[in-house]
Amino acid sequence: MKEKVVLAYSGGLDTSVTIQWFIDKGYDVVAVCLDVGEGKDLDVVHQKALDMGAIESHVIDTTKEFADEFVAYAIYGNSMYEGKYPLVSALSRPLISKKLVEIAHEADADYVAHGCTGKGNDQVRFEVAIQGLDPTLKVLAPVREWTWSREEEIDYAKEKNIPIPINLDSPYSIDQNLWGRSNECGVLEDPWNKPPEDAYDLTSNIADAPDEAEELVLTFKEGLPTAINGASYDLDDLIIKLNEIAGAHGVGRIDHVENRLVGIKSREVYETPGAKVILTAKHDLETITLTKDIAHFKPVIEQKFAEQVYNGLWFSPLSDSLRNMLKDMQQPVNGEVRVELYKGNVTVTGRRSDNSLYNEKLATYTNEDAFNQDASVGFIEIFGLPTKVKSMLESGVKLYD
Amino acid sequence: MKEKVVLAYSGGLDTSVTIQWFIDKGYDVVAVCLDVGEGKDLDVVHQKALDMGAIESHVIDTTKEFADEFVAYAIYGNSMYEGKYPLVSALSRPLISKKLVEIAHEADADYVAHGCTGKGNDQVRFEVAIQGLDPTLKVLAPVREWTWSREEEIDYAKEKNIPIPINLDSPYSIDQNLWGRSNECGVLEDPWNKPPEDAYDLTSNIADAPDEAEELVLTFKEGLPTAINGASYDLDDLIIKLNEIAGAHGVGRIDHVENRLVGIKSREVYETPGAKVILTAKHDLETITLTKDIAHFKPVIEQKFAEQVYNGLWFSPLSDSLRNMLKDMQQPVNGEVRVELYKGNVTVTGRRSDNSLYNEKLATYTNEDAFNQDASVGFIEIFGLPTKVKSMLESGVKLYD
Amino acid sequence: MKEKVVLAYSGGLDTSVTIQWFIDKGYDVVAVCLDVGEGKDLDVVHQKALDMGAIESHVIDTTKEFADEFVAYAIYGNSMYEGKYPLVSALSRPLISKKLVEIAHEADADYVAHGCTGKGNDQVRFEVAIQGLDPTLKVLAPVREWTWSREEEIDYAKEKNIPIPINLDSPYSIDQNLWGRSNECGVLEDPWNKPPEDAYDLTSNIADAPDEAEELVLTFKEGLPTAINGASYDLDDLIIKLNEIAGAHGVGRIDHVENRLVGIKSREVYETPGAKVILTAKHDLETITLTKDIAHFKPVIEQKFAEQVYNGLWFSPLSDSLRNMLKDMQQPVNGEVRVELYKGNVTVTGRRSDNSLYNEKLATYTNEDAFNQDASVGFIEIFGLPTKVKSMLESGVKLYD
Amino acid sequence: MKEKVVLAYSGGLDTSVTIQWFIDKGYDVVAVCLDVGEGKDLDVVHQKALDMGAIESHVIDTTKEFADEFVAYAIYGNSMYEGKYPLVSALSRPLISKKLVEIAHEADADYVAHGCTGKGNDQVRFEVAIQGLDPTLKVLAPVREWTWSREEEIDYAKEKNIPIPINLDSPYSIDQNLWGRSNECGVLEDPWNKPPEDAYDLTSNIADAPDEAEELVLTFKEGLPTAINGASYDLDDLIIKLNEIAGAHGVGRIDHVENRLVGIKSREVYETPGAKVILTAKHDLETITLTKDIAHFKPVIEQKFAEQVYNGLWFSPLSDSLRNMLKDMQQPVNGEVRVELYKGNVTVTGRRSDNSLYNEKLATYTNEDAFNQDASVGFIEIFGLPTKVKSMLESGVKLYD
Repeated sequence: MKEKVVLAYSGGLDTSVTIQWFIDKGYDVVAVCLDVGEGKDLDVVHQKALDMGAIESHVIDTTKEFADEFVAYAIYGNSMYEGKYPLVSALSRPLISKKLVEIAHEADADYVAHGCTGKGNDQVRFEVAIQGLDPTLKVLAPVREWTWSREEEIDYAKEKNIPIPINLDSPYSIDQNLWGRSNECGVLEDPWNKPPEDAYDLTSNIADAPDEAEELVLTFKEGLPTAINGASYDLDDLIIKLNEIAGAHGVGRIDHVENRLVGIKSREVYETPGAKVILTAKHDLETITLTKDIAHFKPVIEQKFAEQVYNGLWFSPLSDSLRNMLKDMQQPVNGEVRVELYKGNVTVTGRRSDNSLYNEKLATYTNEDAFNQDASVGFIEIFGLPTKVKSMLESGVKLYD
Repeated sequence: MKEKVVLAYSGGLDTSVTIQWFIDKGYDVVAVCLDVGEGKDLDVVHQKALDMGAIESHVIDTTKEFADEFVAYAIYGNSMYEGKYPLVSALSRPLISKKLVEIAHEADADYVAHGCTGKGNDQVRFEVAIQGLDPTLKVLAPVREWTWSREEEIDYAKEKNIPIPINLDSPYSIDQNLWGRSNECGVLEDPWNKPPEDAYDLTSNIADAPDEAEELVLTFKEGLPTAINGASYDLDDLIIKLNEIAGAHGVGRIDHVENRLVGIKSREVYETPGAKVILTAKHDLETITLTKDIAHFKPVIEQKFAEQVYNGLWFSPLSDSLRNMLKDMQQPVNGEVRVELYKGNVTVTGRRSDNSLYNEKLATYTNEDAFNQDASVGFIEIFGLPTKVKSMLESGVKLYD
Repeated sequence: MKEKVVLAYSGGLDTSVTIQWFIDKGYDVVAVCLDVGEGKDLDVVHQKALDMGAIESHVIDTTKEFADEFVAYAIYGNSMYEGKYPLVSALSRPLISKKLVEIAHEADADYVAHGCTGKGNDQVRFEVAIQGLDPTLKVLAPVREWTWSREEEIDYAKEKNIPIPINLDSPYSIDQNLWGRSNECGVLEDPWNKPPEDAYDLTSNIADAPDEAEELVLTFKEGLPTAINGASYDLDDLIIKLNEIAGAHGVGRIDHVENRLVGIKSREVYETPGAKVILTAKHDLETITLTKDIAHFKPVIEQKFAEQVYNGLWFSPLSDSLRNMLKDMQQPVNGEVRVELYKGNVTVTGRRSDNSLYNEKLATYTNEDAFNQDASVGFIEIFGLPTKVKSMLESGVKLYD
Repeated sequence: MKEKVVLAYSGGLDTSVTIQWFIDKGYDVVAVCLDVGEGKDLDVVHQKALDMGAIESHVIDTTKEFADEFVAYAIYGNSMYEGKYPLVSALSRPLISKKLVEIAHEADADYVAHGCTGKGNDQVRFEVAIQGLDPTLKVLAPVREWTWSREEEIDYAKEKNIPIPINLDSPYSIDQNLWGRSNECGVLEDPWNKPPEDAYDLTSNIADAPDEAEELVLTFKEGLPTAINGASYDLDDLIIKLNEIAGAHGVGRIDHVENRLVGIKSREVYETPGAKVILTAKHDLETITLTKDIAHFKPVIEQKFAEQVYNGLWFSPLSDSLRNMLKDMQQPVNGEVRVELYKGNVTVTGRRSDNSLYNEKLATYTNEDAFNQDASVGFIEIFGLPTKVKSMLESGVKLYD
């Protein structure tokens, strides 16, 4: 009996060639294609996998699961790798890995395969996640293994009658899901080059964005957005809606040189219009609903969680604990945030909450002031005491003798 | 002989009333007014202090010292309190305190006074800084002590022939220096209210900003900006220049509900056009010039330093060490950053450096690739080993027996 | 009707005087005495409060609740303030505060009082905890308020026929509970002085400890000790048992100059024999049951939790989240630890667990080795790549061109 | 001309076989043996390298350099990997690497080699350090490459007339230097086994240690020990002296299951008698000489530095910055610490310093008290305000309306 390999199949050239390559090596290929919110035509991909010779073809719309079980935690955690990258691809890899493992179990396959190269983060994310879910599965990475040049790959494809995509000469390498779109390669490889307009797809150029600001009121419950201007949405639909609205205003372009897990710096261009709006608004809502103690400590948890996810460690005890803590901390994050989208800007113009810890009577400088200013005298004396003692020591003054 | 008090004098109503109040109490008042880059007319203030009855009036332009000895560290440290506030007022307080102490020593005064209320951060910053510099000085805070309502203060001023400013009915409380402008009070005290246009002064409304993007190339040496489009400037002049240029493009408005040191949340509106450009560009330059290790650890130092400064602990051994470390880490931050200012946006469109750690040969996906993809196999095996062992334990699989 | 005050009553001189002082001021006093594991004779204290004039006297044995709801988290969190102090008194204050508030509600009292001075941490812990549980309660601190010298207090006591304790001339100020005993004052106030033997009570001098080591095997379930040498105990009983056993071996003396919340350094002597054994053994068990990721990140959570508790912030959203996370992380901490108690030492001599992540086949240097040493080559190449790129830049070598 | 390889030569079997193995492969071998304080007989090793066929043999006593340039920073940083391991071997690897590179440059060699296996940390430390110093050097690891079993290695040695050490049947793998001794393998590989006495060499069993305590007074200057009982020593000599004194008292045994960089857990036994005394005393001296701010933040720097060193990243910009900061923070750490060594215990019994921030007048509970207890009232009100506001919100109480 042939060995069986479950392959993460995108419908693109690399993974189509991979099916044939596995067949050449004597494997039966089970193709799996997931929609994580990029709006793929799953029927076409399903048929293509079979056409390429796969013995089974699975296509699954996991958009909702992706939103609820993965993106939600990125929202709880205001997740930004290196302060810039909202973990677009990094969030989808564990979900895809989980589905691959499930199908490998159903299909009784010993092998799982992905189409990543040997210099990116995604190979690590897939392989570590799959091992974390089932350590007996063997992971294959044909694209890393075959070491063909682009030309050699195309020659092989032609020889095997694998259709060559029309946009093959695109210089870019793109990944997309509900939470955004990433782009690298081509002219972007020189970090001094300005990204050309064709590097972008989800967002308008600011110059072309409407000349009128658009005001939105976002409602949040326990840290997640639930409504736009009073209309309720499931999380996945809400993000899709915001991608459209905010993308039109030129919101959410990111140009970042980031430190990959595999030791190199890489220049990436991201578009995350919906994420930008949600994270900006939610973070602002936290300023009135979280205590100072939490507000100052949560970034430590956030940074660690973002690193774990970026590094492919979604399935690990530490990530479990971090997710629990982030969700825990979001219980009071309820309320409304008013934002203006305008020429690339997301400007918060107001925030309110039944859980607000902002106390106008304590904050006001009017004669309604309820703050006891006398207390400050004692506070400052004690808060400043260590500084004073240090200063006494340095100046040789002995005040208390 | 009368007791002598050195007073931080701004020329405004509060500190003018303070001079008279001290005279009533039997003190001789030495008035000190510093320009920290807000462009005060120092001659006018100098004369006014004497008119109010001060026995000495000192006016000092400390703009350059403020830039070089205080703002520079905020640039090294990408300083943002709670991720939003670039420490505008918090940076000037230690400098003002230092000058007050110096003049107290020259004038042989036992008392130093400031005009802060009893519910803000600045009272703490002044008092702790002054004690940190000379623990024998006594600090007085008349505005906190007299507990007058606004009306009572005005009645007192009229009775004592203290001139009432024309803009007295401004609802706002404003502080300004080279690094930006802060505004609070009035309609801003309700965090749901959108800040009205008259809350802003240094920045254009985005709608009124030019319809053409403006491109700038900033040069940095060891973490500090030294030139705009090739023209060299001293740091203070460069910031002033950028405040003008970027302010016109609507860059640098911040609307933030922040956690004060004295236990309350307060809504603040800031304008920091120059700071926004410099920090955006410098942070981007760090992405190619700092190692990953430093890039991931520096934020820990940055956050602690911002807290120290916000909390008035500029003069302390920890702050000294943090400043040394931040400066130390900026040695390789040299190079150029190209930014576009446009309708409120500061967009980095390119960065380059002789110290760049970005290696195009390692990063590229062309056939010039120098990255050894085979090494990834071993890397992933070892990087993923703890996850695999955990997974083995959970699933009861014993792979190595 | 008289105002009613609920007083934390210990039976000692200060709080006995306090009852009378409140009566003088026209209050009705409700006395509350809690046993938190120090083995007080509650009947005696109960009667004494009534003798002193309290209108109600409540005595409550909260030892079990103290162990299960408070000390347990200190064990989960390996809690040590400044790496030395296992939070003895700091752990009992929130429990006492909670009971005071409950009784204030039952008794319909508007006031709660404690007997702390104005320079320690405990005043802060009581007042913040009580406000955190019921912000309408007013907290009184008579000992801080009356500002008597020791002599004046005794004169007052004599005048009011309040019995003076025999050990009044003890120079020490002591607090004790299940988790340990703290001691300060007297000759200890000079940090160069060696603590005299009479400063200790729960532990033998090492010289007097047995000349034979005693071996114990401790069993842990989800981070808590459940058995000694196979005999099961409730947590409170187990700690009491270990205090006796380990105290006899001279285990658990701590001599520490610590930074108080109120700005001063203070020299404290602690005895925590049971805590020392439990924390040493549990921490060791974590080395085989926690992943490296958790082992390296948990100290961040631990340190923050210890600070929160030390600072009296037990009842706060951040402390809630930290407690949840610490407990969460302890799920795999099951197994046995063998320790030797001997002349002040607690030496772990073995640890084992069904959850052990230590894999002898991977660790061994015998020919049973299952570790793939070839993988190290790729791992080192990628792990070392950033260093190599930096080194290339510094030396001007261009390896990849 | 033959290729030349510079080999880190210890004189033991592995590296002696390595010389021959390189000769077989056609290399000229330059042997380098360093004494890092373990007291090797360098003459013997020098001759042995030549006997084995090395074309050059270098032996260098780097004990002083090791103490002053490497161990000193471990003292500044109270360095403990995972809170237990004082970085014994990890500290010597960068020094050895540096010397290997220097000699490679002198000898005009393209290759450097070490005798480490493929599953430890040391291979990483050598290879990353060497690349960090000269990225053009190629590092060879014969023991990792030849993949012989122990028996095969011995057969090869016999065949080649390489002398077999008498203690070859020792089950342990040992590394030693000035800062301590590490031991692994054999019966220690089962973490439940108690380490047998023959696992130890530098320390007495507690049972055999003297029945009398020995008191020492250590003097520190800027964080480093400079004298014992008033007698001054260079750092290396002082450590050697303390190793003897404290080792005799059974001080400094460590039994630790640690997380290696290469993904596995490993059980290690360390002996670090001098380090234990120095770090205990120095850390205690910090309690009176460092401000609270530094005392609470320095552990963050310490932990990061320990990880960097453990992970072989001594030569990196981050490690440079961390070293500078740790040294910077030690300027006030001057004074004396009195310790008792007794039956495995290092007990600090007193500490004093001209830089002491402990202020007895502020700390005392006698009538000399200079602490203003009134100030606590205001302090607590403001410190507790956020808790009160949160509590108001939760209980629905509106105190300020």
